[in-house]
Amino acid sequence: MKFSFKNDYSEGCHPHILEALLRHNLDQQAGYGEDQYSLKAKELIKEKIDNPDSDVYFVSGGTQANLIVISSILRPYQCVISASTGHILNNETGAIEATGHKILSIEKEDGKLTPQDIIPVMESHKNVPHQVMPKLVYISNSTELGTIYTLKELEDLSKFCKENNLYLFMDGARMGQGLTAEISDLTLEKVAELTDVFYLGGTKNGALIGEAIVINNQELQQDFAFNIKQKGALLAKGRLLGIQFVELMKNDLYFDLAKHANQQAMKIKNVMKEKEIEFLSDTYTNQIFPILSNNLIEKLLEKFEFYIWKKIDDNFSAIRLITSWNTNDEAVNDFIEIVKREM
Amino acid sequence: MKFSFKNDYSEGCHPHILEALLRHNLDQQAGYGEDQYSLKAKELIKEKIDNPDSDVYFVSGGTQANLIVISSILRPYQCVISASTGHILNNETGAIEATGHKILSIEKEDGKLTPQDIIPVMESHKNVPHQVMPKLVYISNSTELGTIYTLKELEDLSKFCKENNLYLFMDGARMGQGLTAEISDLTLEKVAELTDVFYLGGTKNGALIGEAIVINNQELQQDFAFNIKQKGALLAKGRLLGIQFVELMKNDLYFDLAKHANQQAMKIKNVMKEKEIEFLSDTYTNQIFPILSNNLIEKLLEKFEFYIWKKIDDNFSAIRLITSWNTNDEAVNDFIEIVKREM
Amino acid sequence: MKFSFKNDYSEGCHPHILEALLRHNLDQQAGYGEDQYSLKAKELIKEKIDNPDSDVYFVSGGTQANLIVISSILRPYQCVISASTGHILNNETGAIEATGHKILSIEKEDGKLTPQDIIPVMESHKNVPHQVMPKLVYISNSTELGTIYTLKELEDLSKFCKENNLYLFMDGARMGQGLTAEISDLTLEKVAELTDVFYLGGTKNGALIGEAIVINNQELQQDFAFNIKQKGALLAKGRLLGIQFVELMKNDLYFDLAKHANQQAMKIKNVMKEKEIEFLSDTYTNQIFPILSNNLIEKLLEKFEFYIWKKIDDNFSAIRLITSWNTNDEAVNDFIEIVKREM
Amino acid sequence: MKFSFKNDYSEGCHPHILEALLRHNLDQQAGYGEDQYSLKAKELIKEKIDNPDSDVYFVSGGTQANLIVISSILRPYQCVISASTGHILNNETGAIEATGHKILSIEKEDGKLTPQDIIPVMESHKNVPHQVMPKLVYISNSTELGTIYTLKELEDLSKFCKENNLYLFMDGARMGQGLTAEISDLTLEKVAELTDVFYLGGTKNGALIGEAIVINNQELQQDFAFNIKQKGALLAKGRLLGIQFVELMKNDLYFDLAKHANQQAMKIKNVMKEKEIEFLSDTYTNQIFPILSNNLIEKLLEKFEFYIWKKIDDNFSAIRLITSWNTNDEAVNDFIEIVKREM
Repeated sequence: MKFSFKNDYSEGCHPHILEALLRHNLDQQAGYGEDQYSLKAKELIKEKIDNPDSDVYFVSGGTQANLIVISSILRPYQCVISASTGHILNNETGAIEATGHKILSIEKEDGKLTPQDIIPVMESHKNVPHQVMPKLVYISNSTELGTIYTLKELEDLSKFCKENNLYLFMDGARMGQGLTAEISDLTLEKVAELTDVFYLGGTKNGALIGEAIVINNQELQQDFAFNIKQKGALLAKGRLLGIQFVELMKNDLYFDLAKHANQQAMKIKNVMKEKEIEFLSDTYTNQIFPILSNNLIEKLLEKFEFYIWKKIDDNFSAIRLITSWNTNDEAVNDFIEIVKREM
Repeated sequence: MKFSFKNDYSEGCHPHILEALLRHNLDQQAGYGEDQYSLKAKELIKEKIDNPDSDVYFVSGGTQANLIVISSILRPYQCVISASTGHILNNETGAIEATGHKILSIEKEDGKLTPQDIIPVMESHKNVPHQVMPKLVYISNSTELGTIYTLKELEDLSKFCKENNLYLFMDGARMGQGLTAEISDLTLEKVAELTDVFYLGGTKNGALIGEAIVINNQELQQDFAFNIKQKGALLAKGRLLGIQFVELMKNDLYFDLAKHANQQAMKIKNVMKEKEIEFLSDTYTNQIFPILSNNLIEKLLEKFEFYIWKKIDDNFSAIRLITSWNTNDEAVNDFIEIVKREM
Repeated sequence: MKFSFKNDYSEGCHPHILEALLRHNLDQQAGYGEDQYSLKAKELIKEKIDNPDSDVYFVSGGTQANLIVISSILRPYQCVISASTGHILNNETGAIEATGHKILSIEKEDGKLTPQDIIPVMESHKNVPHQVMPKLVYISNSTELGTIYTLKELEDLSKFCKENNLYLFMDGARMGQGLTAEISDLTLEKVAELTDVFYLGGTKNGALIGEAIVINNQELQQDFAFNIKQKGALLAKGRLLGIQFVELMKNDLYFDLAKHANQQAMKIKNVMKEKEIEFLSDTYTNQIFPILSNNLIEKLLEKFEFYIWKKIDDNFSAIRLITSWNTNDEAVNDFIEIVKREM
Repeated sequence: MKFSFKNDYSEGCHPHILEALLRHNLDQQAGYGEDQYSLKAKELIKEKIDNPDSDVYFVSGGTQANLIVISSILRPYQCVISASTGHILNNETGAIEATGHKILSIEKEDGKLTPQDIIPVMESHKNVPHQVMPKLVYISNSTELGTIYTLKELEDLSKFCKENNLYLFMDGARMGQGLTAEISDLTLEKVAELTDVFYLGGTKNGALIGEAIVINNQELQQDFAFNIKQKGALLAKGRLLGIQFVELMKNDLYFDLAKHANQQAMKIKNVMKEKEIEFLSDTYTNQIFPILSNNLIEKLLEKFEFYIWKKIDDNFSAIRLITSWNTNDEAVNDFIEIVKREM
């Protein structure tokens, strides 16, 4: 078997989670998220963000979280603003539009939105009532390209949104990786303070399934559970989500797993930097996009699996490497070894 | 802790499933249902129904299965026919209507539909184009009231649907319990033969989550996966569903668990019958609805949890008892003991 | 040509309207409802209801009005309550459900809703978040059966809705006929005071097309125009609607036309009453449902067109007769003559 | 009053239409499009396109036509391809997305799509089932920029669509103007032959309201009327649409009106060309986009109304002039006079 750097959801889950599932397996619990584990996990998350007034809900995956959050917030004529790299735009089979809402796309190479990006979109959508009304800004951290928001960037964006009557929603499918990047100065408390809604991704950070949606803006909290049920996302055995998030929040396991994933990617990146390999984008999380010769790529593919991301020219292509909470040193070292040997 | 007869999803999952999750935990697998466990589970189910041409997909829960199947089949102006007890009508927060489709309800005390029930609905929906067009018949087996379809009943309904250009969809959230009821003469092969689509419920029969949607009508198979993704139901770690259904299908564990649940309910039912207790409906699956004196109900509630289903008069109420794959003899015997002692 | 009593939209429009269209035909006007006629018509309606704070919008037809109003008000998980006779339930091809919302139907013989009808529906929809949330009560005046609300009935319903956090929406496709029924003690001012939204139907009362939506509840006014545009209901030549409603509002033409329609129906009804003919319902508007012998029906069908509404027994059926702003005395007298002769 | 060149729907309708409405006003007719005028108009259109197997339906406006056609054709996961100038993209308040479908936008300066434009979109949407499936190509003729398709261009596009399993839908809000442009070699018969669906716009070409949807692809015809009713677009007095299209089709009035509009625009264009004024795009229909000095624009605005379309630099802007079936020589000559005088 070749080791896969294709994504961060190739394995099952962190052993602590399976142990907890085993430990609590035969306890009888209320269904539909009223189990004691879910209640406890919600408390742990609210403590972590230091905001007892936020509401927390668990769902199974990122597309589900995105479509439920967005469709619950917007009126029929309102739309989303997203960077062109946004997961909701190209990777979710039109899930947002299927709930009736347009997404306005802003071309961004680094996957990040700034107030300056959004202003012209607002300006060009003032022909009432012939155009959709921009109402929600969708961002991801870390982004689909592995880049991250700094505290200052998020503060600016948050301020802009408030001034312009826009909601700010952060897709946190890789929130752990974003916040534990070595250059990140953002914290989860700050994310909670600066966004209306965000979610903490479990699927890509050591859980079997599960994302924790956190609603900070109290006007968006009302009746939220109805939306979860209506979209088919309310698990009868909510305990499955609750138990996992209790384990992930305990002793900051969530952040430790993300940091590990980041570090493994950085080891590879650093070696490549020494070899003067260039990258599509300068990332500090668990996704890196080095530009390699086709020859080297072939060599690496003999022992590893990963995606060829983009053809650069006849001799070079960018590849995407994703490390995970479970990427071990051996795989990383073997990979590095080949790079060193071939360069 | 009181033992709960409230539902069949109070516990985690059958131990074999946890063992398998543990066993395969660190294997790297492709995402989104392309893992080897999902592929194997699909094969096992197709063998079980003896139909290699059916398509199998796994999703997390029943509401999700219902809304994806129905919205994938119907054109915008087409609607569903359901018994008034149908789960989609009153227990799914309008999930079907949220995808744009009306449900026509037919009042039925036993929760089962017959051609004779459907004919007048067809007759009263002929005012083209001012009315919705009935196109899909939704049934459940076992039903929301614990009743089941006989082979003859399903054959009649299937024939009627074909003749009237209606699709037949069976909600099998409790398919195991329905098919293993002592009086059932229906088999899974026959269900596959007589329905266009059905699903095998895992959540209420020993899995952590998971329903297996089986599409028998080949014209409904095309592009089905898009619908799963668009509705947010495609798990990145599809392995979680695949592993569970491999275990459930292996050695007919799925049916053994259901049979156990049924038998525990029948033990209680039989004792009550001896005591000449009446029931709201005559069921042979894991749901029973005995009519008890308020006094007896109070006594039972001291040691057990269950729902009071319906007030009959000032002195009597019907309760709902649900047994599960994990309901043990001790709980059943204790319960029976109280009934015997008090009557 | 036989004279038709089939409906109140068989002819074109009142001559004043065509004259006005001719008079203003070549005036250049702003598009999309910003023309001076639409602005004036809105003022006239607001004067008529004596409420300068209401908002008025014009759309083409009743189904359009219903679907725009309802979908603009409700959140995805909220639903409508309607009498079982409601036009939105059986005569609009699932237009409301197509916008994502369930309609809860209450069986009513007279087509009218009371608080007592609604209370059990509210009681049986408290299983949060597993059921839709009732949020809007839909009524018609006159109803689909020709019956009307009294002031007291509307006051009671309005009070109940406010107390229960429900919006009250009156379908006024036949508002003129309802308010000018000889026994009506309700006025348009009172309708505006007691409902959150209503509309004034033009199509069934002398206009070519057009319904005037009046939004009295200010919290429902915000951004309403977006919904009209999004549903394809914003006419480029809004003048067509504006000119018509200016004419209809001028000198109370709207009410005179409706009164005429009612009176023609009453003439027939009164003769029938003398002949001791029975009716399906006791109506005072332009719809009557007499129960006639099949023999008499055949005789009438030789000279007139109308719908046979319901078979009563082997010898008798109820028919539906609808008179309009344009039903002339000659037709009515001829019809009456046959009834008198044959009885 | 200043003469307006703002759009082609500033006036009422061609006098023939009002005369016909007057002539037939009191004839009793069946409702909902079953009137004799609608039936006749459908026949006239089918003769004009020389295709008795096409189906014709009338609706009120362009947004309505677009949303009904598109939502009736696509399955939930399928999407539309449109030029970035497409009316459905920026001018219809997200009407298409509100029916659940994404629109993929292709940046085009001239508003026209070619197979070469579409190929890369098809190539980049092959990640089944994570992306929407392109299924319908939306084009306009004349386009939103006044440009037109040649026969060869439409043949190429039609062939490409068939080969790639894509439907081709032509928005004909300004079909008359497109086909009667002096340089057009396309005919309505050819449009019918080369598209799956198109519509003939009445609103922007002399009707009060009304677009005639023509469905050429027989597999798309089934049950189409349901969609019209469900979206609130089925007029009770369908006669209003039928009468208009009978008049427009009679003696080719429709094309004469469009030709007139085009010619008035060409008169202005030709004078401007002589004056070496440049244009945003080289159009031959009733929309022209000359680039004028701000000084000249100010002078013209003293006597005329029109939109300033785009700032070019500090001294020059492009304006949009739209002529109509009713733009008279006097207005055109006055306008030209000022241009000549000031240049």
